[in-house]
Amino acid sequence: MNENLSADRPTFVTHLECSMTGERYEADQLHNLSRVGRPLLVRYDLDGVGAAVSRDQLAARETDLWRWRELLPVRHTRDIVSLGEIETPLIPIAKSGGANVLVKDEGRLPTGSFKARGLVMAVAMAKELGVTRIAMPTNGNAGAALAAYATRCGIETIVFCPEDTPEINVREIQAQGARVWRVNGLIDDCGAIVGKGAAEGRWFDFSTLKEPYRIEGKKTMGLELAAQLGWRLPKAIFYPTGGGTGLIGMWKAFDELERLGWIGSERPRMYAVQASGCAPIVRAFEAGEEHAERWEDAHTVAAGIRVPRAVGDFLILRAVRESGGKALGVGDPAILAAVDDCARRDGLLLCPEGGATLAAYKQALRDGEVDEDEEVVLFNCATGLKYPMPEAPNWLDRHGAIDFDQL
Amino acid sequence: MNENLSADRPTFVTHLECSMTGERYEADQLHNLSRVGRPLLVRYDLDGVGAAVSRDQLAARETDLWRWRELLPVRHTRDIVSLGEIETPLIPIAKSGGANVLVKDEGRLPTGSFKARGLVMAVAMAKELGVTRIAMPTNGNAGAALAAYATRCGIETIVFCPEDTPEINVREIQAQGARVWRVNGLIDDCGAIVGKGAAEGRWFDFSTLKEPYRIEGKKTMGLELAAQLGWRLPKAIFYPTGGGTGLIGMWKAFDELERLGWIGSERPRMYAVQASGCAPIVRAFEAGEEHAERWEDAHTVAAGIRVPRAVGDFLILRAVRESGGKALGVGDPAILAAVDDCARRDGLLLCPEGGATLAAYKQALRDGEVDEDEEVVLFNCATGLKYPMPEAPNWLDRHGAIDFDQL
Ligand SMILES: Cc1ncc(COP(=O)(O)O)c(C=O)c1O
Ligand SMILES: Cc1ncc(COP(=O)(O)O)c(C=O)c1O
Repeated sequence: MNENLSADRPTFVTHLECSMTGERYEADQLHNLSRVGRPLLVRYDLDGVGAAVSRDQLAARETDLWRWRELLPVRHTRDIVSLGEIETPLIPIAKSGGANVLVKDEGRLPTGSFKARGLVMAVAMAKELGVTRIAMPTNGNAGAALAAYATRCGIETIVFCPEDTPEINVREIQAQGARVWRVNGLIDDCGAIVGKGAAEGRWFDFSTLKEPYRIEGKKTMGLELAAQLGWRLPKAIFYPTGGGTGLIGMWKAFDELERLGWIGSERPRMYAVQASGCAPIVRAFEAGEEHAERWEDAHTVAAGIRVPRAVGDFLILRAVRESGGKALGVGDPAILAAVDDCARRDGLLLCPEGGATLAAYKQALRDGEVDEDEEVVLFNCATGLKYPMPEAPNWLDRHGAIDFDQL
Repeated sequence: MNENLSADRPTFVTHLECSMTGERYEADQLHNLSRVGRPLLVRYDLDGVGAAVSRDQLAARETDLWRWRELLPVRHTRDIVSLGEIETPLIPIAKSGGANVLVKDEGRLPTGSFKARGLVMAVAMAKELGVTRIAMPTNGNAGAALAAYATRCGIETIVFCPEDTPEINVREIQAQGARVWRVNGLIDDCGAIVGKGAAEGRWFDFSTLKEPYRIEGKKTMGLELAAQLGWRLPKAIFYPTGGGTGLIGMWKAFDELERLGWIGSERPRMYAVQASGCAPIVRAFEAGEEHAERWEDAHTVAAGIRVPRAVGDFLILRAVRESGGKALGVGDPAILAAVDDCARRDGLLLCPEGGATLAAYKQALRDGEVDEDEEVVLFNCATGLKYPMPEAPNWLDRHGAIDFDQL
């Protein structure tokens, strides 16, 4: 069966490092934020990785997330709690996108979203480091992924979400064995409750970027993309940005791949896509700021990117700027129109956040920011099935006379 | 990129054959049922296949459905309309199932169900053979898959479903560019409408087993299983049986694999699982009949297996009997309890039809029909996210005093 989940593999984590100050932290210990309140990044002995495994050897393994083991923090195979983290397909959307547009369909992962990448990693590390009780704020998908993995290995989980989180997410979290609470506030309000409980020692805080391993899981989006495209990268990536873990993770992945000599120095332009009803990163990008202020009265149909304040704001902004990309805002009507168009013409049902990337791409095309000859990857981070769709009203009486011309 | 979707490959279809009489029909022509009203089966030059490709060569290809090209009917790569038909993972469910129970999680396929396997094949063939308008009866998932693939290649699609088809399915079909009608009846009533229109030449009839290629797509479940388990098969397979295409398809796959010399003569016991509120195959199995009579007043929460009458009834019964398996009925309460148990303990959200296989497995264990040492595969044919889940009522006021001990 799958060697990635049964064979032991060497691991190469050397230490963790504050993303702001560079201060060093020990590996194989529980950590949240650094002393200055910023995310920690995991560092590897990349020479060791390069000596242990080649691109060809990687290519010969099963294609799931665990084939990247030498670039991941989990030390012991027995701590991997898997629900089948397959490599997600790249799907062309020629009609609604264009001839060079590929959608990376992350909805195929366990619990229907890319949050599985981050949480499968964070839960494995929590298990390895002896955590028994976890709390997390979520806009929905992350909570569902946490619930599934934590349940599977018997870790107790308590999840807080904004009161208007999509109903299906809330139910899914509960069905998968977590306790879930709706809160009258936004995700950072939920985060405050989690922080308070963590400070009292009631649970371990699993907020995005407040523990160091979710980003390592999300990094695999970048690793996979490189492998799928034959060790090159696309010209541009459009990423729906809330906490930004995925964008930061991919940027880190590209850096590690270059240091390994597996890709060159060219990078995709990274486009951080937000909803205009909640666009703190766009505002900061345009103002030339290093950090983003909280966005008040946040609202958008794309619940996953309704994040008024991101603890990794400066990391997102840095990656976007270094890459020559931009932060782009799109309105809800454009998001919904993009979802509709892609389903109706290319047969691919995006989530609203995925729709936002398509809308932003079209806008960037119109603005001359991208060229239609350029190969572009849009991230559809969850299955469209989790989100409300328009009613289908047609009804037919089989006992009546059926007018076939009218069907 | 993916060679399966870009390279041309030799194909080996020789002809089609009536599953009842063995009468021969020409390949590369449009067909529905045989002259005696029974399904047609596609036949291959298996010596040719064996000479063209080896197990090792197959193993080296991308793992999606199209790696089986030499055993599939599509002649031209350009007619493949793909949405990323990945190989679905096998997921252990040690707590709710047992140490030797694997779930094949078909919910990871495009449109969230295994119907994508059959419809991606049938639509490619329809495209190859010049069909421009398709109609189909569906309990939901098949219609969604048809809509997606047909839309993608510009074939017009009209879908009829029972009025109490899960809401999400009906909306999904419409969102993906098909016209969909709710009908006051069951799937065979919808089938009658499709048949009438087809007789009038208004469209091509895509009902299960009424066109010969869906079964070839479903067959890949059996091919994949063999490859995933290292060219052996499990001791038993539990399959949620409506029209039975998947079960018939897997049985056909095993036969082809044995003729190729890629597996031996051992077969899994095939368990056809039905809901006790709609169990025509179980009734016929127990009565020793070759055909199954229509089940009146069919009802079950597992909409996908609410099929009162199956045109391939004798093929299902034959496979089950030859394999030494059984047809098993399980009640809705057991189905829902199994879904709940698997999610709550193994973190895997099954669809009700998948829950039915788990419930049937537990029942078979209790009855001594299977042994807990035997390796068993349960088919979860759709993502659990398409189905209603229990309410999650907890609510927290962030402005109030939070009693952390009560969370
Ligand atoms: C569907 C979807 N897209 C995008 C995001 C944003 O992800 P990130 O936190 O990596 O920016 C989320 C987060 O909840 C999400 O659920
Ligand atoms: C989820 C699910 N399971 C099982 C079935 C039954 O499949 P088959 O027609 O191959 O028996 C269906 C068919 O609609 C389905 O949607």
